[in-house]
Formats: sequence, structure tokens, C-alpha cells
Amino acid sequence: MSTSAAFQRARRPEQKQQREEAILGAARELALRDGVRNVSLNDIAARIGIHKSALLRYFETREQIFLELTAASWRDWTQALHAGLAAADAAPGSVGSADSPGSADSPGFPGSAELVADVVARSFADRPLLCDLIPHTALNLERNVSPAAARRYKLTSLGAISDAAGLVHRVLPELTEDECREFVSAMASLAGALWQIANPPPALAELYATDPDLGQACVDLLPRLRRTAAILLAGLIPSRSRG
Amino acid sequence: MSTSAAFQRARRPEQKQQREEAILGAARELALRDGVRNVSLNDIAARIGIHKSALLRYFETREQIFLELTAASWRDWTQALHAGLAAADAAPGSVGSADSPGSADSPGFPGSAELVADVVARSFADRPLLCDLIPHTALNLERNVSPAAARRYKLTSLGAISDAAGLVHRVLPELTEDECREFVSAMASLAGALWQIANPPPALAELYATDPDLGQACVDLLPRLRRTAAILLAGLIPSRSRG
Repeated sequence: MSTSAAFQRARRPEQKQQREEAILGAARELALRDGVRNVSLNDIAARIGIHKSALLRYFETREQIFLELTAASWRDWTQALHAGLAAADAAPGSVGSADSPGSADSPGFPGSAELVADVVARSFADRPLLCDLIPHTALNLERNVSPAAARRYKLTSLGAISDAAGLVHRVLPELTEDECREFVSAMASLAGALWQIANPPPALAELYATDPDLGQACVDLLPRLRRTAAILLAGLIPSRSRG
Repeated sequence: MSTSAAFQRARRPEQKQQREEAILGAARELALRDGVRNVSLNDIAARIGIHKSALLRYFETREQIFLELTAASWRDWTQALHAGLAAADAAPGSVGSADSPGSADSPGFPGSAELVADVVARSFADRPLLCDLIPHTALNLERNVSPAAARRYKLTSLGAISDAAGLVHRVLPELTEDECREFVSAMASLAGALWQIANPPPALAELYATDPDLGQACVDLLPRLRRTAAILLAGLIPSRSRG
């Protein structure tokens, strides 16, 4: 296989980067197909046609590969939020704009909040790999890499949350940036937790579908995220005075 | 070691139960000390002084042991919530009682909501084992047991959430039982996710404590849970009219 041969020869920086990208690409494909928990270093190496030891010249551990994928997913997620919220904000008749103050007690807030809830919920529901990776980061990935790699990842994920909070704040200036950060952080944790519940293995999915006592076990990810986002946003202003 | 000898001889039902309890007790101690993710079947077997194969006469897999522990933790959690909310409800001058209608716009609601937020937040923060186990259930435990064991566990966890929702509903009758269930479910998912972030391994804790750029990475579990609970409760009523 030519990929394998290329891996044996690569020496230059751009070749090194090509290899890293090939490894990340293989890990991404396998994780989307089989779930993050089921993908081993051997699986990734086999996918590219190299030996595990060759792979470890590019990444410290299996966990570092997935932590890099998580960082890339956060960056992609921030861009999607930016596009979704900017498009919504600029749309004619946008509920958040000054000349169209929304329809309820708190001018501008409810309509804009609905929109933010929808865009943020979709930003996660559209990204199964990010959702799958989120609970793995604190549980596994950050625990099996060097402090330097953990730090690099953490700066990326914290930066993504800050950027997202800033984007939400632009649409909902009634909330402080800290409140927007609380909202976005809670949504990220919930998206990670709920995605696992919403995507059970086949045997469990079958059980939930056929056993009427287990109906409550099913979670439909997008509507659940959208609903929780709306509740959090609706609660942020009134909870302020109750500190 | 006498425990080991007892394990070799036990035949009667009550002896079988004793053995199961010894296994669960060892798994609990090790998980509290080392974290759920770090406890193997061999560790549990070694702790009791038996061979792994003997242990597998009582439980299907490592995951079934931890799933049983999670079920027991949910039952204990429901009892604690019951005690916490009942005591609060019965206390003289309780903000939720009819003759002391709280202090703000929605009579009785804000003060009672504060109290529920505090009791629910503590019910998780006081239970590190439950918090540690929660993300492991959907991610790992439910995926490596028989459908019968998964079903048994699911009925216990769903029952605990329903019971808890009923208890919250008694203190906050302004919310529907379904809304109380949404609240309790979201809190459980968040408690599981945040506990992992709030309890990093020593190398990461050191990094967070010393690197000013990583200040946002630290999470203080109880106040964060209490605050999110207050936001969710404050948002449930106003979010109703916004679909």
C-alpha cells in the first residue's frame, strides 16, 4: 500500500504534517463509525497501514490523538456558531435587532433567546464526533497525555467557550459575558452527556424501543438540547436577583 | 485470609449474598480511592483475596459490578433528597409553607426554588461515587452487560429520577412533574460531567493551580451545581410560554 510506503520515507516537515493529518483523519473516520470508546491505537495504525510504533512517533498516546481531534472539533464548532448567529442576527426582521423588539415582556430577549437556543442546540446536535468526544476528555483523554499537551488542549477548549460566549453576548446583550459563558459551558457538558444517552448501542436501543417501561430512557438529542437551552436562557435573568 | 477461605466454601443463598456484598464493597472502596476508571476486575478480586474467575461467578463483568453500585447509589441519593426536602419543607418559617410565602413576585417560588437548588446540588456534591459513576454508565457500563442487567439498572435509575421529580414537585407545585423531571435529569447529567472536571488528576490540578491562563478550567462543584440549579428552576416557568 502506497500510504504505508510513504510513511516509511517521510522526513520533511510538510511530510510530517501530512502523516499527522492522515492519522487524525483515520481516527476521525473510525470514531464516527464505531464510537470513540471503541477505537484503539492498533485500529488507527491498521487503517493507515502502518505499525503502532510508527504512529507513536507522531503522537504520545491514543488519547493525544483524540484530544487533538477534540481541539479541531471545538474550532470548527466556534466557526459554525459564528456563522449561525451572525446569519440570524443579520436576517431581515431579526428578533434581536433594535427595530424589531420581539413579542414579550422583556423587549428583544425572548425571540433572540429562542434563536440562540436553536443555533446552539444544532451546533452540538450536528456534530456527533464533538459530542462523543466531550465526556471522554475529562474522563480519559486529559488523563493520559503530557501536561504540555493537556495545557494546549485546555487553552483551545477554554478559548472556544469564551469565543462562543462572546457570540451569544452579541445577540443577547441583556446577559453578561460571564452569564453567556455559564450558558455555553452547561450546554457543552449536557450535549456530551445526552449524546451518549441518545446513542445507545443496538442491544440497548432495541430494549428501549420494545419495552414500554423504558420509554423515558429514550432521548431525542436536538429537541432536548434546544429545550434545555431555552430554560437556561430564560432563567439567567430572573436568577440574577436571587443570587 | 479468612475472607478468601469463606469465598471458597460458600454455598447457601445468604452466603452468596454476603459474597456479592463483599465484592460490591471492595469495588466501592477502590473506586472512591482511585476513581472508577482506574479499578479493574483484578483489583477488586485482589482486594477480597480471590481469583478473578471466582468473582465472575457472581457478576457478569466488571461493568455489571459498577452498574450495581450505581443502582445502589441512586437509591441512597433518593433517600437523601427525601430527607433534605422533607426537613426543609417542615422547618419553621420554611419559605415554601403557606404562611410564609417567600419574598418576591411569584409567591413562594423563589425561596423554595433556592432551597431545592441547594438540596439537589448537595445531594450530588456529597456523593462523589455517584457523580463519578454517572458518566460511566452510558459511556461504558451499560454497554458491557446483558440486556437483562441493563434493563434492571435502567428501571432503577429512571425510578430514582421519577421519585426525585415527585419530591421536587411537592416543594415547587408551580412546576409540573414533567418539568421537575427535566430539572432533575439535567442536574444529574451536569453533576456527572462537572464532577470529572472538578476532580482532575494531580498533574492537571497542579497545572490549573499554577497557570493563570487556565484559571477558567477550575470548577468548584457545589456552588456551580447550586447556581445551575437556580438558573434552571428560574427558567422553567418563564420558558413555558415560549414553547
